Amino acid sequence: MRTMAVIGTGLIGTSAALAVRGRGVTVFLADRSPAAARTAAALGAGVAGSPAEPVDLAVIAVPPSQVCAVLVEAQECGLARCYTDVASVKAAPERAALSRAPAPDRYIGGHPLAGRERSGPLAARADLFQGRNWVLTPSPLTSDETFDRALELVDLCGAVPVVMSGQEHDAAVAVTSHVPHLMASLVAARLREGPAALSLVAGQGLRDATRIAGGDSRLWGDILRSNAPAVAGVLKDLHTDLSRLVPALDALAGSGGGDRDHGMRTLVDLLDRGISGRAGIPGTGPTASDDDHRVRVGVPDRPGELARLLAAVTELGVVAEDAAVDATDGGGAGLAARFTVPPPLAERMVAELRADGWEAVREQDAARLSSLRE
Amino acid sequence: MRTMAVIGTGLIGTSAALAVRGRGVTVFLADRSPAAARTAAALGAGVAGSPAEPVDLAVIAVPPSQVCAVLVEAQECGLARCYTDVASVKAAPERAALSRAPAPDRYIGGHPLAGRERSGPLAARADLFQGRNWVLTPSPLTSDETFDRALELVDLCGAVPVVMSGQEHDAAVAVTSHVPHLMASLVAARLREGPAALSLVAGQGLRDATRIAGGDSRLWGDILRSNAPAVAGVLKDLHTDLSRLVPALDALAGSGGGDRDHGMRTLVDLLDRGISGRAGIPGTGPTASDDDHRVRVGVPDRPGELARLLAAVTELGVVAEDAAVDATDGGGAGLAARFTVPPPLAERMVAELRADGWEAVREQDAARLSSLRE
Repeated sequence: MRTMAVIGTGLIGTSAALAVRGRGVTVFLADRSPAAARTAAALGAGVAGSPAEPVDLAVIAVPPSQVCAVLVEAQECGLARCYTDVASVKAAPERAALSRAPAPDRYIGGHPLAGRERSGPLAARADLFQGRNWVLTPSPLTSDETFDRALELVDLCGAVPVVMSGQEHDAAVAVTSHVPHLMASLVAARLREGPAALSLVAGQGLRDATRIAGGDSRLWGDILRSNAPAVAGVLKDLHTDLSRLVPALDALAGSGGGDRDHGMRTLVDLLDRGISGRAGIPGTGPTASDDDHRVRVGVPDRPGELARLLAAVTELGVVAEDAAVDATDGGGAGLAARFTVPPPLAERMVAELRADGWEAVREQDAARLSSLRE
Repeated sequence: MRTMAVIGTGLIGTSAALAVRGRGVTVFLADRSPAAARTAAALGAGVAGSPAEPVDLAVIAVPPSQVCAVLVEAQECGLARCYTDVASVKAAPERAALSRAPAPDRYIGGHPLAGRERSGPLAARADLFQGRNWVLTPSPLTSDETFDRALELVDLCGAVPVVMSGQEHDAAVAVTSHVPHLMASLVAARLREGPAALSLVAGQGLRDATRIAGGDSRLWGDILRSNAPAVAGVLKDLHTDLSRLVPALDALAGSGGGDRDHGMRTLVDLLDRGISGRAGIPGTGPTASDDDHRVRVGVPDRPGELARLLAAVTELGVVAEDAAVDATDGGGAGLAARFTVPPPLAERMVAELRADGWEAVREQDAARLSSLRE
């Protein structure tokens, strides 16, 4: 790919332009707001204006409801040989493109899973997509050349291509992004009418939980409307869960006339379902559970010895919090600390801790030893 | 304060012990699980066991429903001269203490606004409370000596004391912490039954939005039960909002028979209320709006010039994202970038940018200049 056009120089469009510019691609920038296109150009994302001849790929970076209209207009002008978009809803733009675009075979839907709290070209970064998934949703008509161009864009941006249908994409983001956004908005909206002490007890947890609700309301209104069928379905399931939770809390408050024990079971069941649902999100914590990956270290029962061990394992690259300590089987008066680590690290960890004088052993070896003794 | 006891050596209890140990206080550690107390001791948080004579302050770091029972037992043994706790619910423990503790005047409720995703003594840090608010909720009976000791603890931990009633505290945390936790659990629970593509489209936004749902379900069940009246009230309001949102999404999906325009208004209204609610959380973004704080810089309309300016202002300590760019009044063919900064920085910024050859001016001066011209 040698030339690219970006239509819509907001956060995502400008970031994609910066990324491919850094890899030697000539980029042409356009936006409904001339100031936005000139801002992106002044940031070094390319040149504002139209190319003299068709570019290799046009990236349409506008809200979902506008993707098809922009695609139709661009294809009528012959702006590019291939087209993709970066909107976070895929089925509706694809349906519209298949029925209205002059060359639907030259279009493939796309959605990079990257964003920031801030929007607009000034928030753009060339490395925004580095290591992130970038979903591509080819239609039955999408040509090989168009698919390849989109894959090349994903590669130039340092992202990981993931292929699925537009329907699959939309059902998934309804659960992972669109409904969480609405819930965060509902939670944040409660802050407006709350007691005066709110800001004194608001901490990092609340900032994190409501961060997604900070996004532009017109853009998000467009996104949610474009994916309304999938969002409505998930929202109804969640509404049903909440409708069960309200009487449970009423019972616990002693005001609803319900059974407190039943209320408590309903509450803890929801909390447990939340914990297990969270475990499915990549990067939310250690998931190893194989015995092979556990290292047990005896800790003398003296002040500071455990702190000394934690410092030692941190130096070996082990997250000290992936540890459990118990006092039952350290041998004698000591404690035993258990660390859950990947197998290659486990071996090195045992060797290096032993060299430092610690009683370190892989859990499996320990189990084998005690079964030999029996 | 020279001596302190911590009952319950989880994350919060052990962190408080580490903090005051670092300031020379002798700390005695106790936990229902002897291994947990010994783990805290091995981390350097103090000595596991009971003091020979009453300590200056006992910190009760157990779930809310157990605070009063532990307080009664400790006061009956004469463990300390003064007592506080760190539970995240305050009214119920205070009511129980006033009716059942042998010396309710020697108790003051407390709640440090600090936490981590991980729990247990291994996650403890001496600086966990640094700069965080620590709510104290004196009862009508709380003695001056007890209040002073608690203030000293807050100070030794590097936290900021905030005084309010237990009722005020509980009403506020229901909105900022307890209901957000339940909503995050409801969102995370949906991930269990969702489509297979979920993990491919789950990003940082979802991790942040559901982080609080990762907490221990028994502890959180206890917290939510102890604050059930306040939580139930907020939950009902939120349920009402959600009950309005479901038909709005149905209408937008074209399946509910409702009016699409009305659906869109309901949706965008909620998103806007979420944004304005979020603005009340400290630390969620720039809040300055005074003209005095704005600096306007002319940017030549050449590729890379804006990037060069952003690099220059970043060096001056200005967050480049607190900027707006427009193309209307930069003079001639240029752009104008606006930065919102604190007044002392504004002055220095104008001086240093001018010295570097930029056309920088404070917005107020610009307004004054143009009104003089009129």
